[in-house]
Order: sequence, then C-alpha cells, then structure tokens
Amino acid sequence: MFTALPKVDIDRIMAELDRLASKSAAPPPAVTRVLYTDQDLEARAYLKELFADAGLSIREDAIGNTFARWDGLEPELAPVGTGSHTDAIPHSGRYDGTVGVLGGLEAIRALRRTGFQPFRPIELVMFTSEEPTRFGIGCLGSRAISGSMPPESLVALRDADGRPFDAVRRAAGFQGELASVKLPARYFAAFVELHIEQGPLLERAGVPIGVVTAIAAPAALCVTLTGEGGHAGAVLMLDRKDALCAAAETVLAVETTARSSGSTDTVATTGVCRVHPGAINSIADRVTLEIDVRDIELARRDRVLAAIHAAIEAIAAKRQVEAVVHCLTSDPPACTAAIVVEAIECTCGKLGLKSLRMKSRAYHDSLFMARIAPTGMLFIPCRGGISHRPDEYSEPEAIARGVEVLTFALAKLSYTDDRVFDGAAHAR
Amino acid sequence: MFTALPKVDIDRIMAELDRLASKSAAPPPAVTRVLYTDQDLEARAYLKELFADAGLSIREDAIGNTFARWDGLEPELAPVGTGSHTDAIPHSGRYDGTVGVLGGLEAIRALRRTGFQPFRPIELVMFTSEEPTRFGIGCLGSRAISGSMPPESLVALRDADGRPFDAVRRAAGFQGELASVKLPARYFAAFVELHIEQGPLLERAGVPIGVVTAIAAPAALCVTLTGEGGHAGAVLMLDRKDALCAAAETVLAVETTARSSGSTDTVATTGVCRVHPGAINSIADRVTLEIDVRDIELARRDRVLAAIHAAIEAIAAKRQVEAVVHCLTSDPPACTAAIVVEAIECTCGKLGLKSLRMKSRAYHDSLFMARIAPTGMLFIPCRGGISHRPDEYSEPEAIARGVEVLTFALAKLSYTDDRVFDGAAHAR
Repeated sequence: MFTALPKVDIDRIMAELDRLASKSAAPPPAVTRVLYTDQDLEARAYLKELFADAGLSIREDAIGNTFARWDGLEPELAPVGTGSHTDAIPHSGRYDGTVGVLGGLEAIRALRRTGFQPFRPIELVMFTSEEPTRFGIGCLGSRAISGSMPPESLVALRDADGRPFDAVRRAAGFQGELASVKLPARYFAAFVELHIEQGPLLERAGVPIGVVTAIAAPAALCVTLTGEGGHAGAVLMLDRKDALCAAAETVLAVETTARSSGSTDTVATTGVCRVHPGAINSIADRVTLEIDVRDIELARRDRVLAAIHAAIEAIAAKRQVEAVVHCLTSDPPACTAAIVVEAIECTCGKLGLKSLRMKSRAYHDSLFMARIAPTGMLFIPCRGGISHRPDEYSEPEAIARGVEVLTFALAKLSYTDDRVFDGAAHAR
Repeated sequence: MFTALPKVDIDRIMAELDRLASKSAAPPPAVTRVLYTDQDLEARAYLKELFADAGLSIREDAIGNTFARWDGLEPELAPVGTGSHTDAIPHSGRYDGTVGVLGGLEAIRALRRTGFQPFRPIELVMFTSEEPTRFGIGCLGSRAISGSMPPESLVALRDADGRPFDAVRRAAGFQGELASVKLPARYFAAFVELHIEQGPLLERAGVPIGVVTAIAAPAALCVTLTGEGGHAGAVLMLDRKDALCAAAETVLAVETTARSSGSTDTVATTGVCRVHPGAINSIADRVTLEIDVRDIELARRDRVLAAIHAAIEAIAAKRQVEAVVHCLTSDPPACTAAIVVEAIECTCGKLGLKSLRMKSRAYHDSLFMARIAPTGMLFIPCRGGISHRPDEYSEPEAIARGVEVLTFALAKLSYTDDRVFDGAAHAR
C-alpha cells in the first residue's frame, strides 16, 4: 500500500494542541470551550485552516459538524470516518476530544506525505458539542448525524439563559435546515475514533493502546426540588421546607445508590447544583440538580436510576417539598464493530504494540456513530486516569503511538471491501 | 404638642412602596435590588426626590448612607433617628426595610402637616446594604456608622466577581473618605426602626404592634470544600473525593445541629451553594457554602457554631477533602433601650393598640445603632411570617398602624430631655 512508511509528526500535533488550548474562556492550564461561544468559534476557524492546509475539502452542516474530506481513488465509495470533538466543559483540560481531531488530521497528513492514496475517501469529522455543557445534553452533533435527535428535539433545547438552540446556532453562523444534518444510512463504511482513556487502566497495565469493545450506557436526570423560601433568621427550623436540605439528601442518595449497585462499573454523579435565590440569609425555595448515571450493563444502570427516583420521592414526601424529575438522556450502551477492532489489533500486532480490550465508561460520539456505521474506538493512556480537569495529561509518546495506530488502521479500512463492512459483526 | 392630630396617608405610602418595588432586577412580584446596581441607584434617586419634596435636607456619606433631616426648634441638639434599608436580596419582596424608610418619611410628613415642630431634629436614615448579597456581609452602612466596621475592613471586601468595594462604591458615585462615615458618639439622642416582623408571632396573636426587646445574635460562615474533580464516567465511586457530596453532608449537619440545640430559638441555614466546575459530567472539585446561624442567646449560638465546625472537620477527614472555614460575621445580640420601648408602648396605650414585647430573629441595622444610641424597634405583622420572598405581604392597615405609632413616638422622643437619654437603661 505504501511507497514509504508513514511517520507521525508528534511535535506538530503537540504545537497544535497547545494552540488549540489557548482558545479558552478559562486561564491556562484550564480549558473552557463551550458550544457556539467565541472560543468555540475561534477553535473551529483554526481547525478549518489546518484542514484546508492539509488539502482536505471542508463541509459544515447546519449545526456545525465539520467534515474534512480526502477523496481517495474511488470518491463514489462510502468513506472511512475518523474524528472526535473540540468543545471542552468548564475548567477542563486540553486532550479530551482534541487528540482525536488533531490526531486524525495528522494521520491523514502522514499518509499523504508518503504518497499513499486511499481507495475509499477518508473523512475527518469534528463533532458539534460532545459535551452537554450548554444545552444539558451531550453528543448533539453525533446524535443529529445518526438520526437519534430529530430537528424538533434540537429546536426544543434551551440553554441556562433560556436562549433557544436554533437562535444560538444561527447567531453563531450556522443557518441550514436542521433536517439536513442526519446522514443517509451507510454514509460511512466504517468509523474509528481516537481518544484518551479518561480512566487509569492502560497506565496501570503499562499498555499503550486500548481497543474499545463496548461504550457505557449513560443516563442523565435533571431534578428540581421546590420547597418554601423565607428569611433565614425568622422561620423556625421545624416550620421549614428547605429545598437545599432536600437536595443535599438527594446528592447523598445518588452516591449511596451507585455504591451499592453490586458492581464497581456503576457510577453516579451530581455535578450541578443551582440554588434559588442563593442568598446567605434566605432559605432556598428551589434547587436544581443534574445527575449523571452510567454503567456498562443497561439493566443494572436502569435499576440504579429507578432506585434514585424512589429515593427522591421519599425525600420529597418526608420534607414536604415538590420534586420534578426530568430524564435528560437515557442511551443504551453500544458495542463496537469487529471489523474495526480487528483493524486496530492487527495494526498493533504489526507495529509491535501491546493492546488491551476494554470498555469505555465515558460518553463518546462513537456511541451514536455505532448506530449508523461499523464503529470502533482506540484509547491511549492519560496520567492517573484524570480527565475533565486542568491537569489532564497524555504524554507526547502516548499520543504518537495512538496516531500511528490510527494512521495504519485508516489506511487498512480504506481498502476494505464493501462486503466485509456489510457483514461487520459486533466485537462482542 | 399638636395643633391637630397627625394622620397617616396610607394610600400614599402604598403608592410609594409600589413605585419603589418597580426598581428591581427581577420581574414582579419579585424584587431584586442589590447594592450599587442600577436598581439600587434608581431607588436612591427616587427616595431623595421624596425626601426633598418633604422639605428635608439631605446628606449622603461616603458609602451612600442617606440622612434626611428636619431641623426642629433646636437644631444644635442631638437628633432622634429613624429609618431602615431599601436594598433587597435576589427574588425577595417589597416590604422588608422599605416600610421603615417610607413609613419614617410619612411619619415626618404627617407631623409637618399638623404644624408640629419637633424640639430636637428628626433624622430619617436610609442605610446602605443591610442585606449581605453583594459583599457577603450585612448591615454595611450601620456597621460603618457605628464604628463596627473600620475603613480597612470595608476596603478588604470583594464581591463575587472579585471587584473591590472601594472601586464599586466610587463607580456608583460615592467618593468621600471612608473614615468620615463613622458618626461621633452620641450623634443620635435615640434611634427607632419600624420593620415588618418577618415572623408569624404578631399575626398569630392578632396584635398590631411588636415592641422589640432584643435583637438576635447572627453569625455567618463561608465554607470551601476542595476535593478532586474528574470525569463523571471514568472515576470509580471508591476513588472519588467529591466536594459536592462533602457539601451535602455539611448542609445536613448544619440543619441537624440547629435542630438539636435544645431551643427552637436556634436557626441555621445554608443559603448559598456554589459548585465548581458545575458541569453534569464532571465531579465537583470545589464547593463553597455560606451558612447563617442565629440565636437570641450568644452562648447557645456559639455552641452551635462550634458543633458545625466540628462536623465539617469530621466530614472533611472522612472524605479526604480539604475544608476551609471562614467566619464572615459573628455579632453579639443587642438589647433595646428602655426609653424607646416606653415611648412605643406609651403611644400604643394612648392609641388603644395592643402591643407585644418580642425578640427579633432577623438582622437589623438597629443591631449596630444600639451600639451608639439608645435604640428600639417596632414590628408590624406580615402575612404568614413570610419574608425574603416575592409573596412577602403586610396589609395597608397594618402598615398604617405601625407608621401611626412611629409618628407619635418620634414626636415624643424629640421632646425628651438629654438627661433621660443619657440614663437610658436597656429594656432587659
């Protein structure tokens, strides 16, 4: 396939990661890059420049999913896709998502430098809003691409300031029809995403490549507890219906329920707690909590969700506060495709790199891409398993190994016959 | 004293309360009027117009405490003071504080309409920032007036956006020397504040006037809990140091401690809970709580504070999070002056109105005025004891009775001999 073996330019990737990290609403080392903010738009502009410099043709859809395409020898064939996201939750780090976008770009550049020509097109995708920060729901771009989130659901979204999704995306310069975002079935022949592990297993095992066989089943709840406000000095303790006390019990119930699920694979987190009116001398009359529950096993996750629902009901009854529980998302887990798993593992074998089959606990756009294409993920280690924090870190060496494997896997997949993809069985 | 008996124009007070309530950052019926915001400055401008229309001379000090003066027959004598505040915590109501300012103004107008001339001057005070919303500490104006908050403490204040007090007050147009705010000892011969009860006792007893004999001892803590952030999907439950879970235990410990103090007079409230980074898929690494603790008895309040400190320490140790507890305020309770209590009770007797001696559980500027002047307070009922909420309500009839009593009490105090004030014993 190759006239010369592709070589990854890791210094260039690191410099680009550094430049991308500067497009942030938080001071370094923290990164904050929220959907359709100035920082998000600056990051998009920077990446589109890089894509164009690499000789790729660029298409943006109506919500900002960005496709950078290398036509290959047979432009009519379904492309092989790779990519990830570049948005970042408040005060997080610089590697989550970005390694998959800049790494995918460098994989394409490395192939081009050797004179390689893919048989199928290769398309690099930068997904819109993998993080749920702005509209409370993650993977907006890949949900919409895969038809998992129809236009009417997008239109119903409001951010914390009450601004409707449609107005915000238009103000950011994305004007097309929302119905045009969904891609036709079999648009991609295969999809593969490179990502930092966001967990400690690869580092602990001393293995450079993780091959994902399943992506956890995430669910998200928004709970609004409404009690009775009042003056912090004047209302006696026994007369109170303090919404923050009810919220505190809920936070602890979420933790206890996850801890007692019977498996360490279950995690549940209350990451958002908004108090109204939020004054030191005022009893809270309304508290909003956002709760994230994940598991590899759908049935166990749903048992935990049910237990959290029941706990909230009991707390509300005991404290005479009103509880409204709204399910933000509840996605089934995904299995990855055997054809992609094999492409990654086969590459690791040829490059003499150890790999480890593993499950992804974090949400990824691949969860939704798996609904419309044979999809796989490859993980690289990150220090201490830390992610979503300013001290998130992957060594340049680790990133280089991941991009190298991605490079060969893309080349291999681009020469794979349609009939093989059509028969793509799941890894497990 | 009077050529005709003073009559309170309650329709005018209600219209003025209504107009004042419109100067709000929250939509009606909620009122939000935070120190040095546009709404606060608009309210000040409106009130100064009303003071001028009533023929009063106006002085503003360097932080915006506003004094509207009626000279009386002997302008050299120490004045009798009355007044309250017009700032309002987020999403509160329209009566807290404002009834004491507009009621004090109407008392003066009612006296003037009869041709009455006070012997001593009568000074109406509108205090700056009785509410702690902006700088985390309440009664800024009366603390400074009474010398309880020296200029260096004011200068050290920062709002939630990190803006220093001094810059903010200057931007709001208050330029003088902070050292000039403290009033000379014995500046006021006496001080009396009219206020809604903010509790249910008068309404329950069917009594129109409460005569305050003591003002509760408030303390406020700011607690910062620092744990470890991370990805909500990737960090296993047993590996977590979740700052929000530690905060939840703290909120419940505050409640439990107050409930088990041995007296229903003890109240403790967590009204502020700020979560960092505050994203649904991120474990909280830092949570800030603001806690308010009050009691009529200083020793019992301080026992409760100590118990809360101990609980926080235990929670932090158990969860391996760091806890920093900062004491924002810790004020001793105040007793009111017998001379003012008697002036109010004597007026009630003459007007045929029942009165009830009671304690104030809420913070008031009178807590600090009591340090430099014989001070008293009179309360009027408010519906359901509700305050600091949009549905805070006092009937026009209740307000009229309160202003009537204030009118006669001010007249009486303005004719009281210096020697009587000097010997002013405390009510209890």
